Amino acid sequence: MASKNQLFLGLFVHSKALDELEYLHNTAVCVDKSGTIVAVESECDEARARETLFPRLGWEPNEVDVVCAREGQFFFPGFIDTHLHASQYPNVGIFGNSTLLDWLNTYTFPMEASLANLAKARRVYTRVIRKTLSHGTTCAAYYATVDVPSTNLLADLCFSHGQRALVGRVCMDQLSPDYYRDASPRDSVAATEQSIAHIRALDPDSHMDMSRALVRPVITPRFAPSCSAELLRSLGDLAAETNLPIQTHISENKPEIELVAKLFPEHESYAAVYDATGLLTDRTILAHAVHLTEKEADLVAQRGAKVSHCPCSNSALTSGACPVRWLLAKGVVCGLGTDMSGGYSPSVLEAARQAVLVSRHVAMGGGGDGDKLGVEEVLYLATRGGAEVVGLRGKVGGFEVGMEWDAQLIGLGMVADDGEDRAQQGEGQGGGEDDGDVDVFGWESWPERIAKWVFNGDDRNTKKVWVRGRLVHQRKGEW
Amino acid sequence: MASKNQLFLGLFVHSKALDELEYLHNTAVCVDKSGTIVAVESECDEARARETLFPRLGWEPNEVDVVCAREGQFFFPGFIDTHLHASQYPNVGIFGNSTLLDWLNTYTFPMEASLANLAKARRVYTRVIRKTLSHGTTCAAYYATVDVPSTNLLADLCFSHGQRALVGRVCMDQLSPDYYRDASPRDSVAATEQSIAHIRALDPDSHMDMSRALVRPVITPRFAPSCSAELLRSLGDLAAETNLPIQTHISENKPEIELVAKLFPEHESYAAVYDATGLLTDRTILAHAVHLTEKEADLVAQRGAKVSHCPCSNSALTSGACPVRWLLAKGVVCGLGTDMSGGYSPSVLEAARQAVLVSRHVAMGGGGDGDKLGVEEVLYLATRGGAEVVGLRGKVGGFEVGMEWDAQLIGLGMVADDGEDRAQQGEGQGGGEDDGDVDVFGWESWPERIAKWVFNGDDRNTKKVWVRGRLVHQRKGEW
Repeated sequence: MASKNQLFLGLFVHSKALDELEYLHNTAVCVDKSGTIVAVESECDEARARETLFPRLGWEPNEVDVVCAREGQFFFPGFIDTHLHASQYPNVGIFGNSTLLDWLNTYTFPMEASLANLAKARRVYTRVIRKTLSHGTTCAAYYATVDVPSTNLLADLCFSHGQRALVGRVCMDQLSPDYYRDASPRDSVAATEQSIAHIRALDPDSHMDMSRALVRPVITPRFAPSCSAELLRSLGDLAAETNLPIQTHISENKPEIELVAKLFPEHESYAAVYDATGLLTDRTILAHAVHLTEKEADLVAQRGAKVSHCPCSNSALTSGACPVRWLLAKGVVCGLGTDMSGGYSPSVLEAARQAVLVSRHVAMGGGGDGDKLGVEEVLYLATRGGAEVVGLRGKVGGFEVGMEWDAQLIGLGMVADDGEDRAQQGEGQGGGEDDGDVDVFGWESWPERIAKWVFNGDDRNTKKVWVRGRLVHQRKGEW
Repeated sequence: MASKNQLFLGLFVHSKALDELEYLHNTAVCVDKSGTIVAVESECDEARARETLFPRLGWEPNEVDVVCAREGQFFFPGFIDTHLHASQYPNVGIFGNSTLLDWLNTYTFPMEASLANLAKARRVYTRVIRKTLSHGTTCAAYYATVDVPSTNLLADLCFSHGQRALVGRVCMDQLSPDYYRDASPRDSVAATEQSIAHIRALDPDSHMDMSRALVRPVITPRFAPSCSAELLRSLGDLAAETNLPIQTHISENKPEIELVAKLFPEHESYAAVYDATGLLTDRTILAHAVHLTEKEADLVAQRGAKVSHCPCSNSALTSGACPVRWLLAKGVVCGLGTDMSGGYSPSVLEAARQAVLVSRHVAMGGGGDGDKLGVEEVLYLATRGGAEVVGLRGKVGGFEVGMEWDAQLIGLGMVADDGEDRAQQGEGQGGGEDDGDVDVFGWESWPERIAKWVFNGDDRNTKKVWVRGRLVHQRKGEW
């Protein structure tokens, strides 16, 4: 948490609706010591805030930190990565021409298993937290590994770095290598309970109200093929007892779907397997959902389960092109996931960009223009949509009174009059700062600048990042 | 050109064949004052080079500049961008949900026309040259605009910045806005000849042997729909007289193909229109070629025309997914193009990454695993393939004696033992350097490091760039 009340001034951009961004110019946002937004005032500068807002809030003027977006900068809600495997981070970009099932055996299981070494786990997990924070990811739904101590370490590190997170110990008791699996459903549940207890003890807030916790446990059956029916049922029971969120994979690629049909012949579909075992709930995050049948999608919508769309991963592993618009039209809540390391990038902005592109492949592959996602829609998925997927609807993802200050300050590069690259040349005092690939010439409208950011932005544009009011990342050279 | 002979030492990586990268460890490459590679020696350090290579080459030891790749760095051939519109650069990322024909009228023609203002053109063209150089693009096939003075300015700027380039004045005399078109075929050809004369006069080398010129003119009918049959024929004649390269677009999206069929009913296909007018030659660069029929692809192969594959653009504008493997199997030479601003990115590395992903959509959309392109293939297209597309086969694109030194020095980020981000924290003298998103843990093989670079690399990894031996870009803080 922040130690002081904070006043943020300038331009704020956030999603108003799926297809609408709102631009709050010359606005003041007040965030109290608990990290909660307590005022959003338009046409308000610092003087006016001191004159009218501080008295109204009962704030002592000299106990307020002031953060101004500079000309051309704007505040944006922090990104929510609804699906990623922290334990696979060292493998990003390494997948060759493999597809899901051989990729798991070739690249993934050996790496995950190796993180039982806590020194290695600390190095990898610290890196993935630092990296995702630097890309503006204020909340992440992580898969760790089967190993309890290293899963708990991931939760510890999220907590100490101040990243909001769901951390799941991976459950799997079949069709996995001997060196990397739970010995039995009972062992799997016991280990999961250990990890839940550890994570609950982390954050004093969580004892009163789990939804207040910065880091929450999440029940994590890897996916149906690697879990026995007994394990799935036991985890469904555990979810019902604890009321905890659940995360798993569904319908990522076709051989996987055929495998599920073969393993669970008594159920009529992949979604039905989860439904029958108590895992298809309104607290469930389903990664991928590329090939759901109409009936499955209806079932998912009916149960209120959420979908994490992972476009980088789905293209990289030749899994398919997820019809996100179709899911949304059915009332399924969707967010974005990087799915490292099936996905190659740590950036939710890259996932947003690829969501635009993949939606065009859906449109070209038999769909139509109605399947396309634009800049507004993918930014909604990256913030408001993601918030709902991880159970934080109304709590993060926008700038509204009562929400928590999970936010990023974005700055775009301005092209000099002569077109030369001053930052690169190190001109100016101490050398220019590197604003990355986004080049603003000055005549662009704000929606055009946002489009430039979505298509060419990277971590160089993410100048500062806050979670619940606490500054958790700052680029070198920012002040 | 470089003023001294140069010795490059370390690891060199280049394409040996379409599916094979060669790793030349502990190697010395000697580049003479003309920028030509005169020796490639394995198992050779500086002492050995001084002892054996310098005497053999007749080099004075104190007249040699030495450049060493540091541990973990490597030299890679410069990228060749076989298709981009310098004049559309300010619009990158701005395309909404448009497709080709409405995109041209909404975004593209107004921007191109506005560059008749030379001050604006200088700013935009300087920026695009600086930007593409910073991404390792040592050679670019540029479209400028209809306007002669600003087209000539682009050529001047490429020459002064030292970027190898083909620069084309855009020809279009129909189906274009009144404010932006040639008044007649005759005017179009006359203006093109003016621009050719200007560009030829730029480089003294070009009078002896045009293929030696750093900046070359290229005959540039925009595409069949915006050119009358008479203009196409005249430009075909001009190409035959001058022996100059040609660049145009073909079969980018379906409405465009239907339009060509309507406008040129006497020809049986889009490719046949170019063939009948003398524009389908072995010096022709065809951008896109997404929807060629089998017969057209055979014709293109027979004529030896080349294809510029532009995956970012084709996905962004919902144009289609180009079956590159199928074209290659037919014997069509292919390279990569950023196609800014149909494509959103200035980076050929991004085009390579998207070529991998788009090939997977080809595979999923009815093709098969044989349609997939891997890391090796897309890097081949970005270097050797591109060189052949722009008429520089055997001259650039690899590290071989007799080739010119168009190269980039690549450095990847190394993860510290504790996983923290030292560069970000500005530790060490003067603050660490920002190596971008690629994180090498140390256990990765070289092919794995190259894959990490392809999927997460950006301009931060491109430390230095040379064209014909001249250092044309260097990242701040590099030494």
